[in-house]
Amino acid sequence: MTEFLKQPTSVEKWGIFELSLNGPSEGNPYQEVNLTARFQYKNRIVEPDGFYDGNGVYRIRFMPDEIGIWCYITTSSIPELDGHHGEFICLQPSLGNHGPVRVKNGYHFAYEDGTAYMPFGTTCYHWTHHGDERNEELTLQTLESSPFNKVRMCILPTRGMRPPQLAFTGTTPEDTDRTRFNPAFFAHLEGRIADLCRLGIEADLILFHPYDKGDWGFDSMDRETDQYYLRYVIARLAAFRNVWWSLSNEYDFNKFKTVEDWDRLIQFVQRRDPYQHLRSIHNGTKMYESSPLYDFSKPWITHQSIQHWDPELTTEWRMANRKPVVIDEISYEGNSSRRWGNISGEEMTLRFWETMTRGGYVTHGEAYTHQDKRAWISSGGTLQGESSERMAFLRRIMEEGPADWSQAAQDGDYYLNYFGRHQHAYYELALPMGTEYSVEIIDTWNMTVTPLGGTFSGPSRIELPGNPYTALRIRKAAQLAGAGAGGGESA
Amino acid sequence: MTEFLKQPTSVEKWGIFELSLNGPSEGNPYQEVNLTARFQYKNRIVEPDGFYDGNGVYRIRFMPDEIGIWCYITTSSIPELDGHHGEFICLQPSLGNHGPVRVKNGYHFAYEDGTAYMPFGTTCYHWTHHGDERNEELTLQTLESSPFNKVRMCILPTRGMRPPQLAFTGTTPEDTDRTRFNPAFFAHLEGRIADLCRLGIEADLILFHPYDKGDWGFDSMDRETDQYYLRYVIARLAAFRNVWWSLSNEYDFNKFKTVEDWDRLIQFVQRRDPYQHLRSIHNGTKMYESSPLYDFSKPWITHQSIQHWDPELTTEWRMANRKPVVIDEISYEGNSSRRWGNISGEEMTLRFWETMTRGGYVTHGEAYTHQDKRAWISSGGTLQGESSERMAFLRRIMEEGPADWSQAAQDGDYYLNYFGRHQHAYYELALPMGTEYSVEIIDTWNMTVTPLGGTFSGPSRIELPGNPYTALRIRKAAQLAGAGAGGGESA
Repeated sequence: MTEFLKQPTSVEKWGIFELSLNGPSEGNPYQEVNLTARFQYKNRIVEPDGFYDGNGVYRIRFMPDEIGIWCYITTSSIPELDGHHGEFICLQPSLGNHGPVRVKNGYHFAYEDGTAYMPFGTTCYHWTHHGDERNEELTLQTLESSPFNKVRMCILPTRGMRPPQLAFTGTTPEDTDRTRFNPAFFAHLEGRIADLCRLGIEADLILFHPYDKGDWGFDSMDRETDQYYLRYVIARLAAFRNVWWSLSNEYDFNKFKTVEDWDRLIQFVQRRDPYQHLRSIHNGTKMYESSPLYDFSKPWITHQSIQHWDPELTTEWRMANRKPVVIDEISYEGNSSRRWGNISGEEMTLRFWETMTRGGYVTHGEAYTHQDKRAWISSGGTLQGESSERMAFLRRIMEEGPADWSQAAQDGDYYLNYFGRHQHAYYELALPMGTEYSVEIIDTWNMTVTPLGGTFSGPSRIELPGNPYTALRIRKAAQLAGAGAGGGESA
Repeated sequence: MTEFLKQPTSVEKWGIFELSLNGPSEGNPYQEVNLTARFQYKNRIVEPDGFYDGNGVYRIRFMPDEIGIWCYITTSSIPELDGHHGEFICLQPSLGNHGPVRVKNGYHFAYEDGTAYMPFGTTCYHWTHHGDERNEELTLQTLESSPFNKVRMCILPTRGMRPPQLAFTGTTPEDTDRTRFNPAFFAHLEGRIADLCRLGIEADLILFHPYDKGDWGFDSMDRETDQYYLRYVIARLAAFRNVWWSLSNEYDFNKFKTVEDWDRLIQFVQRRDPYQHLRSIHNGTKMYESSPLYDFSKPWITHQSIQHWDPELTTEWRMANRKPVVIDEISYEGNSSRRWGNISGEEMTLRFWETMTRGGYVTHGEAYTHQDKRAWISSGGTLQGESSERMAFLRRIMEEGPADWSQAAQDGDYYLNYFGRHQHAYYELALPMGTEYSVEIIDTWNMTVTPLGGTFSGPSRIELPGNPYTALRIRKAAQLAGAGAGGGESA
């Protein structure tokens, strides 16, 4: 039969075990060859799809989630790919590997090992598409020193783009062959997803988008081609623990697909993804019109990926669908000529705070336009706005607090009051009686935290600086002083 | 019979002709004596109510609106007040007297002589109530040097206030007699209304309000007492040309009255006011809730006196009711501990611009709180905020433009584009072809107007400073250069 490639014998938990096999290269192996494998640990069985990687090489990727000995066996209609079996050991995850992100406590997120994860996303739609390795490295450097731990990024190109490589073979709309994928494109993309993973950044992959307008035609493929594409993407990328699936950006701007089509495609991803990565879809028109959002209560949706300019609706969306709210587009900081891309850093910071203090999450983006280079939201590069530094400050504040701060507020343990554009001279806090609280005044723009002396209990008048963008952080004094402090309980 | 008082023989158009008569003072003349007069000029007849002014003196006030000889005759069930007749001459109005303000062109206002009037209101609810003449004079000085040409002010006191004089006799809730009015209170109020008139400022009189809560009980009087009060107020004040009727502030916070009660009271004012001053009613809850506004399409309402924080709804309100929109409360600049009273000067200025560039009007207010004095919205005094200076700048800009700028924009004559929080690096203007326009960049916060060189026509890219609070003023070049400029037409 065929030559046996050497297979790995160990992999860390939530790492990627990759089985490589040689097989036929004639015909169109993407279409004609089926390959899956069955991975088993005790009575847990996972069956990911394999994929053709060009040059006669087939691969099956698997992300184990149990420590111990896993065995596997392949299945294919092609004899030389069928029946390969073996075993490997799944080891402790390495430092910083907490597994994929999951929904936790209804409205929040956590890594699979239980470590808290709060999404502080940003947007670089096509940072991997331009064939500019130097700019991609620069983007990674920028992200590494930024507060961002999620990037929204597209797999497919937009109208007018002529990237050196595509998900499909070919480089122009005329010579694209939608029956064949381009392994080199994916290898490059996977490298970047792995780079993000190393930096602790989730890759919120946008699978479709409407910015095609008859150029590539990727927004108007038939049902079979859509699923053929999704299946290949999932086979290659689902084993990366930092992947999220965003079925489409601004799905409602795509006039070729109905909501039912989207429902079907999201359910297809739900069926094919062995790891059940986070799944959502992102609306367009809601930004300035009153058409309804996608019905995020549908069971295949894990979180609400919303576009809207008004963070004060967060409470309403939480109550409506009882899933995490992530406002993935809330307008971008910048100086674009388009309304969606030219809010100030102050406004962007305000929208982050308004959303997060209501128990939602927001994704950042910058659209500063220059004669000589593309905007961050399009191509990454460097950040120049004023909000990202404030996001870092906000992230620090949020991470110092409880993971589920809305619950903590209900429990009377922790409060974060944000006053937005309001500039109170003082504020009448109605604190619970019988519990002592520390109070700090936060200047969210100048990024200062000023503790007030003493502790507070019951109705308390707090003098404020009378500036906009002020917040109060209120914590149980005992929490701060450590267990056993105050109250005179026996030791 | 009785002694004849000397009556005036002339009055300017839209001035006040006041007839004074002696009559009985025993019993309760407010209740027991009826007095009206019939004023006639050619075939025009107006019949205002008279009123008892204490000390046996009765008066009838009349605002003539036609130049020439008017005659009059009184009617009363009391013989000594009945059948007094005479004539007087109505003269040209003096400089600055343009008559009462009327609705014009559907969404706008003008004085009765056709002079443009754009309301730039402010709010001093109880500036006349505190018995502090020095502060009242100071308020008038402040108003004189301010951009404001309308003041919202209450006739009735709020809970807890103990003003030296009341509309009714008595000075405490216990000794108030609602069957008798206090002429001294009204004489003082009329003096202040006359002072405002001299400064070109409209008095937007708030006839009822809900801030009583069982103290005075003026919010829960019976139907007859409400109408008794309104009739006296109208008899005394309707002849002042600068009066507007605001039936209630935050009417929906008054739990003793239904919308039907308010409809009836507004219609009562409509029937009794011989001059048909502007009439509206002002909502409360709409500020932060989604309950419906009063139905301003009702025929007795002249304009929409709205409370709401979102100026972007102006377009919707215009379309809904096809009457002028005046956002009489849009939050106040200040440092109050209440949300409605602590927005920044920048935010207040933004809300003015957002409203006016949509074809609406806004009323200003300040709620800076100090240990030693009351806020401007309560008692007048001096202004200390940052927005009033910007209102003056905005007023200048608006008054340099066409009176009906929304129509002028439709006609392609004049555009005022405001970008609010957006900070464009450039803007693609779609100007009509074949017409040359001048373009100016307005910094609405720093109050500068920067003309761009040359003229523009058709699609035009305008470089912008990339700052928030920027506006563009675009005018037909020919308008600027004077008739006959450009185009090569024959002289």
